[in-house]
Amino acid sequence: MYFKINKKAFLDNINIVSRAVSLNSPLPVLHNIKLSVKDNYIQMTASDGDISIQTSIFSDETSNLTIFEEGDVLLDGKYLSDMIRKIDAEIVEVETIDGCLTNIRGLQVNFELNGIKSENYPVIDFSQPAESFELEADVLKNIIYQTCFATSEKETRPVLTGVNFNCLGNVLTCVATDSYRLAQKRIVLNNNHNFNITIPAKSLQDVSRIINTDNDITISLSDKKVLFIINNILVQTRLIDGLYPETSRLIPSEFSYELLVDARDLLNALDRASFIKNEGIYLVRMQMSEDEIVITSRSNDVVSEERVTPIEYIGNPLNISFKGNYVYDAIRVLNAFHVKISFSGNMKPFILKSVDDQNVLQLVLPIKTYN
Amino acid sequence: MYFKINKKAFLDNINIVSRAVSLNSPLPVLHNIKLSVKDNYIQMTASDGDISIQTSIFSDETSNLTIFEEGDVLLDGKYLSDMIRKIDAEIVEVETIDGCLTNIRGLQVNFELNGIKSENYPVIDFSQPAESFELEADVLKNIIYQTCFATSEKETRPVLTGVNFNCLGNVLTCVATDSYRLAQKRIVLNNNHNFNITIPAKSLQDVSRIINTDNDITISLSDKKVLFIINNILVQTRLIDGLYPETSRLIPSEFSYELLVDARDLLNALDRASFIKNEGIYLVRMQMSEDEIVITSRSNDVVSEERVTPIEYIGNPLNISFKGNYVYDAIRVLNAFHVKISFSGNMKPFILKSVDDQNVLQLVLPIKTYN
Repeated sequence: MYFKINKKAFLDNINIVSRAVSLNSPLPVLHNIKLSVKDNYIQMTASDGDISIQTSIFSDETSNLTIFEEGDVLLDGKYLSDMIRKIDAEIVEVETIDGCLTNIRGLQVNFELNGIKSENYPVIDFSQPAESFELEADVLKNIIYQTCFATSEKETRPVLTGVNFNCLGNVLTCVATDSYRLAQKRIVLNNNHNFNITIPAKSLQDVSRIINTDNDITISLSDKKVLFIINNILVQTRLIDGLYPETSRLIPSEFSYELLVDARDLLNALDRASFIKNEGIYLVRMQMSEDEIVITSRSNDVVSEERVTPIEYIGNPLNISFKGNYVYDAIRVLNAFHVKISFSGNMKPFILKSVDDQNVLQLVLPIKTYN
Repeated sequence: MYFKINKKAFLDNINIVSRAVSLNSPLPVLHNIKLSVKDNYIQMTASDGDISIQTSIFSDETSNLTIFEEGDVLLDGKYLSDMIRKIDAEIVEVETIDGCLTNIRGLQVNFELNGIKSENYPVIDFSQPAESFELEADVLKNIIYQTCFATSEKETRPVLTGVNFNCLGNVLTCVATDSYRLAQKRIVLNNNHNFNITIPAKSLQDVSRIINTDNDITISLSDKKVLFIINNILVQTRLIDGLYPETSRLIPSEFSYELLVDARDLLNALDRASFIKNEGIYLVRMQMSEDEIVITSRSNDVVSEERVTPIEYIGNPLNISFKGNYVYDAIRVLNAFHVKISFSGNMKPFILKSVDDQNVLQLVLPIKTYN
């Protein structure tokens, strides 16, 4: 195995596959990146068992790739990334010199890294499942941004640690919930599909960070896995087993109170009081009437009180308490100038929507208080 | 107590005294900042028992201070700093409204903070000791930068966790050592003094970060404490008890080998191999001869080898091993283009100096290796 490559192109690809390198895996072989040098391209693969990533680098003006000899080797992901990051040359030479002993050369510096035979790496099946659809890169990133934060961090109900992708006809509904809040995004696809899968939130966040293109992204899925094709990058993740709860009936459709407010005003007010925690919870009380919204946060030692003028408020005065960070997160991801919040009572879930985008919906459960 | 003040000026001063606010102190009263509003200025004080800081803010075009009512109160340092940082106004109003209950007002937002009576705060004596000298701000910062890093982090010999300031006649010698490396800086003062004190490294780092002026800094000391006067800021710290070791006899004066080298070249070479650790130590071997320096680092799986051309090397070829980060740190703080390294043998301490500045000296002990 012997090739020359542009340092930055090589490092960018190492950083991408490194997202799947498992530093703490009980299988030491997964600490490695599999490097395969073919006739006219090189391929890097890494996997932590849950997510697997493969990139292919071809020879072009960015990669400056020249291949002298084919071959495969497993190289420690952490060492390889440190070496290429620190190397002192624009073009890096990589050559196995004695079995798996690999020589990585810059200008003044010369690294040697003891590799492992590639036969020791598990076989990873990157074959493309038949069910397939395409999304613009920005649309996929937005789905992930607007839903992932609402997944549960607790493993007690594993299915809630993922985002549910449910497609009926040409409508794709993506839902995340931790039982106290819920995020739902709807997308209309070009073709009809029928699937219902739950993708781990962590894998989706990795996909979002890897997306480095404006091109469409192909998403192919079976009942076992989902594969994202991002130009020359394949990202494949396991699915979460188990039935995702039927969330549509949780979303109220009739409301008695409606608040229209400047998103920035409300975000600032919530952020200002966010250092006040009561028994670990950042609890906010909102008192609404036609003239003003009074936002109060309190702990034993501190009180914060703030007045915001609504654009419009319809309904009788209402007092409602909630986790401040839940409402803050929900408004933040709506990315809107004006937010409409619809309530049906001070102990009923309420809904936050952008005035300009009806396809995304955020739901938050209030908290009962005794003062 | 009632005053108005510019938010930024107030926050800057809160941040300064907050360096002495002790969040984990067993004395809860030390979690507070003491705020004293006098006739024509306000004063803030904080202490963690080791270091005490007091700032005074007068009315000027920066502070925009207007005092309506005198008074004292203790306010939680963390809450006060969060509130002023987050407040939504350029001019902040602070008023005690009911005993110690303090109201902090911005534009829309209104904070209430339960304070404590100032009588509960310990009396801190900021009186100025008689022995006093002045240093330019930059000179003091440089002393701290070039010595503090070499202090010990282990509490087994407490005196080594500080920097020794020893003055005989008009020569001030500042020394730090952790027994494996040593940093020494000499300064000529305007007047004669006679003292020998050891200042905690942490306090010196706080002083360095607080220095926000080009004016001279007054340093006053007794055998119990040292007081730094930085314009309107007083920083006072306890000293470390115990006899500081006599270090001058550790510094060799005769050398058999001398290397003159570009500082940047050597720093880059050491940095590049710094990810290679052997049993937790970043061990570097340097093989020197007239033509080249070969720098090698190795662990079980990795080898890094690098060649640097010396500007000049005098002496027989020499192989020497050391902790790479020790030599890296020593060269970094010299702030020099060219570094002269003088050796007397592969198991003797060696000396690093800037070619342009003879007042600072760095010493490193080699490490014995068996290959």
